[in-house]
Amino acid sequence: MSRGRLEAFSDGVFAVAITLLAFNLAVAGPGHGPLLHQLTDRWPAFLAYLISFFTIGIIWVNHHAVVDNIALVNRTLLFLNLLLLLFVVAIPFGTATMATYLTESGQDANVAMVVYVITLLGMGLSFGGIFAWSLGAGRTHRPIPAGARRAVTFRFTIGSVLYVMALVIAFVSPAIALAIVGLVAVYYISEGTVPGRKAPM
Amino acid sequence: MSRGRLEAFSDGVFAVAITLLAFNLAVAGPGHGPLLHQLTDRWPAFLAYLISFFTIGIIWVNHHAVVDNIALVNRTLLFLNLLLLLFVVAIPFGTATMATYLTESGQDANVAMVVYVITLLGMGLSFGGIFAWSLGAGRTHRPIPAGARRAVTFRFTIGSVLYVMALVIAFVSPAIALAIVGLVAVYYISEGTVPGRKAPM
Amino acid sequence: MSRGRLEAFSDGVFAVAITLLAFNLAVAGPGHGPLLHQLTDRWPAFLAYLISFFTIGIIWVNHHAVVDNIALVNRTLLFLNLLLLLFVVAIPFGTATMATYLTESGQDANVAMVVYVITLLGMGLSFGGIFAWSLGAGRTHRPIPAGARRAVTFRFTIGSVLYVMALVIAFVSPAIALAIVGLVAVYYISEGTVPGRKAPM
Amino acid sequence: MSRGRLEAFSDGVFAVAITLLAFNLAVAGPGHGPLLHQLTDRWPAFLAYLISFFTIGIIWVNHHAVVDNIALVNRTLLFLNLLLLLFVVAIPFGTATMATYLTESGQDANVAMVVYVITLLGMGLSFGGIFAWSLGAGRTHRPIPAGARRAVTFRFTIGSVLYVMALVIAFVSPAIALAIVGLVAVYYISEGTVPGRKAPM
Repeated sequence: MSRGRLEAFSDGVFAVAITLLAFNLAVAGPGHGPLLHQLTDRWPAFLAYLISFFTIGIIWVNHHAVVDNIALVNRTLLFLNLLLLLFVVAIPFGTATMATYLTESGQDANVAMVVYVITLLGMGLSFGGIFAWSLGAGRTHRPIPAGARRAVTFRFTIGSVLYVMALVIAFVSPAIALAIVGLVAVYYISEGTVPGRKAPM
Repeated sequence: MSRGRLEAFSDGVFAVAITLLAFNLAVAGPGHGPLLHQLTDRWPAFLAYLISFFTIGIIWVNHHAVVDNIALVNRTLLFLNLLLLLFVVAIPFGTATMATYLTESGQDANVAMVVYVITLLGMGLSFGGIFAWSLGAGRTHRPIPAGARRAVTFRFTIGSVLYVMALVIAFVSPAIALAIVGLVAVYYISEGTVPGRKAPM
Repeated sequence: MSRGRLEAFSDGVFAVAITLLAFNLAVAGPGHGPLLHQLTDRWPAFLAYLISFFTIGIIWVNHHAVVDNIALVNRTLLFLNLLLLLFVVAIPFGTATMATYLTESGQDANVAMVVYVITLLGMGLSFGGIFAWSLGAGRTHRPIPAGARRAVTFRFTIGSVLYVMALVIAFVSPAIALAIVGLVAVYYISEGTVPGRKAPM
Repeated sequence: MSRGRLEAFSDGVFAVAITLLAFNLAVAGPGHGPLLHQLTDRWPAFLAYLISFFTIGIIWVNHHAVVDNIALVNRTLLFLNLLLLLFVVAIPFGTATMATYLTESGQDANVAMVVYVITLLGMGLSFGGIFAWSLGAGRTHRPIPAGARRAVTFRFTIGSVLYVMALVIAFVSPAIALAIVGLVAVYYISEGTVPGRKAPM
C-alpha cells in the first residue's frame, strides 16, 4: 500500500462527505409556507452546515499534515484510517439529525446532540490514534521534534477534552454543547497544526 | 500541505457538487400526469442545471489556473479555499431552490433567486480572495506580469459586479437576475483566464 | 491547465455519476407488498443499471485513451470536456426516468426512452467532438496513424448512428430502442479502442 | 490505459460507495416517535453500516495490493475491474435493503439477506477474477512467489466459500447469514493480504 493511494481514497471520502452536508439544507418546497419562513425556520441546518463543514475541512488539513510525513504504511495504520473515515462518513448523518431536532422540545434535542457529538468525538479520537501511531520509531520520514510532539499532542488533547465536555453537557443543554463544538472549530482554524510550507514546483 | 493534495481534495468537491446538480432533474414519477408535461413544466430545472453546471465548470478551470502557479501553501490559503468550497457545495442547494420557486407567484421567487445568487456571489468573492492572496510577493512560481494582473483582476471584478447587480435585481425581477447570471457564465466561457498551454508529457 | 488535473476532475465526475446509478435500485420498503415482488417488478431498473453502468464505464475507458495522448490543453478542449461531463452527469437522471416509465402504457414510455437516448447520444457526440479536436495538428504527443484514425472514427460513428436509430425508434418501440442501446454497450466492450499497454513501473 | 488512472477512477468509486452507506442511517424525523426509539429500532442499519463499511474498506485495501503490482493493463483487466465496481456500487443498495427488512417477518427478511449477500459475493468473485488474471505470465512487475500465491488464493477462497454458505443459509436464517458476513470482515481485517511496506518519500 503506497501512501499516495491512502491519501487519494481518504481525500475522496472527505470530499464526498463534506459535499453531502449540503443535502440537509434542502427546503420542503411549495405548499409548505412562504420560502422565507422555511429558510429562517431552518437556521439550525445552516449553522450546523457551517460548523460541520469547517470541522471536516480542518480534520482533512490535519490528516494531510500527519500522513504526509508517514514513511511506513501497515495494517494498523490502514485500520485506524478506516476507523477515522467511518466517523467522517457518519458526520453528515449526525449533522442532519442534530439540526432537525435541535429546536424540538423534550429529550429529542439532547439525544440528537449526543449523536452528533459522538460522530465528532469518534473522528477526533481515531485521528488521535493515527497521530499516536505515527510517533512510533521509524514511522515518519522526518523525526518529529519533542517540542512539536508536545504542542501537537496538546492541541489534539484539548479538542478531545472539549468534545467529551460537549458530550456530557449535551444531556443537559444541547445549545451549550453546540457552542462548544463551534468553538473547537474556531480554535483549530486559528491554531492549526500545519505550518506554511513551500509547495514543490 | 502540498499543492497536489489541495488540488485533489478541491477537484473531488467540485466533481461531487457538479454531479449532484442533476439530482434536481428527477421527475415525480407515474401518477403525477403525463411525463411530457412533467418535463416541460420543469424547464426551470433544466435551465438552472445548464447555468450552474457551466458556472461550476468555469470556476474549476479558473481555480486550477490560479492554484497551479502557487508556490506557498499556508493557513490563509487553506482557509480561503475552504470558504470557496463552502459556497461551491451550497450551489446545488441554491440551484434546486431557485429552479423550484422560479415560477411561483408572490415573493417566493424573489427569495429563491436571492438565495441562488448569494451562493454564486459567495463563490466568486472567495475565489477573488484566493486570487488576491496569490498576488502577494513570493506566493507564485512565476511572477504575474502587471498586464495580466490588470486583465485578470478586471475579469474577476466584472463577474462580481454582475452578481451584485443580479442580487439587487432579484428582489424585483428573478427572470432578469437569472439572465444576468447566465450571461456571466457565457462571458467567462468565451473570455476565460486560462491560455492554452502545452501539457507535460 | 495540465492534463493531469483535467483527468482527475473528469475521473471524479465519472466515478460519482456511475455510483449514483445505483440510487434507482432502492425499493419502496415495508408496506409496499412482498419484497420479492417489488424486486421482480423493478427488473427495468436492474437492466437499466447494467446498461448505463457499462456505457459510462466504456466512455471512461475511451476518454482516458484519447486524453492520455493529448499534448495541448486549451479552452476549446476544456469546453468540449465540460459538455461531455454535462451529459455524463445527466445519465443517472435519464436512466432512472427510463426505468421508471419503461413498463408504463401510453406515450410515457416513449418519452422516457427519448430522454434516455438523448443523454447517451449527447455523451457520444461530445466525446466524438473531443476525438475530432484531438486530430488537429500538434494536439497529440504521438501522431495518430491514418489507419487508426479510420478505425477509431468508424467505431465512434457506428455508435452515434446506432444511438440516432434508437432515438427514432424510441418514438415507436421503447423496447427495441433499449435493445439497440444495450447492443452498443456490448459492441464497445468487445471492440474497444484501447489496446493493451504496458503500465509504467 | 495507465494503471494510475485505473486506480484513480476505482478509488473514486470506492470512496463514493462507502460514503453513500451512511445515507441509510437517516431517521424519519419529528412526528415519528421519540428519537431514541427511532435510533434503537434502527440497530440493523447501524450494524449493517459497520459491516459493509469495513467490507468495502478491506476490498479497497486488497484492490490496491493487487493492482499496485500489475504491469499490463488490457481490455480483460478493465472489464473485470468494471465488474468489480458494478458490485461495489450495488453494496449500498444491498445494505439498505437488508437493514430495512432484517427484522420483518415472513420471507422478506430472507429475500433481503439473499440480495445483500449476492452483492458481496459478486464483489468477492470479480475480485478473485482480477487476482486470477494477475497470475498470468508477465502481468506483474514482481513475480508472485508460489508460497504467496497459495496463501492469497487460500484467503480469497475462504471468503468466497463463506459468502456462498451465507447465501444458502440466508434462505433459512438471515441472522446467521449476517453473522457469517460479519465474520468474513473480521477475518480479513486481522488476516489481510497486505504486508507492511515502506512508503516512498
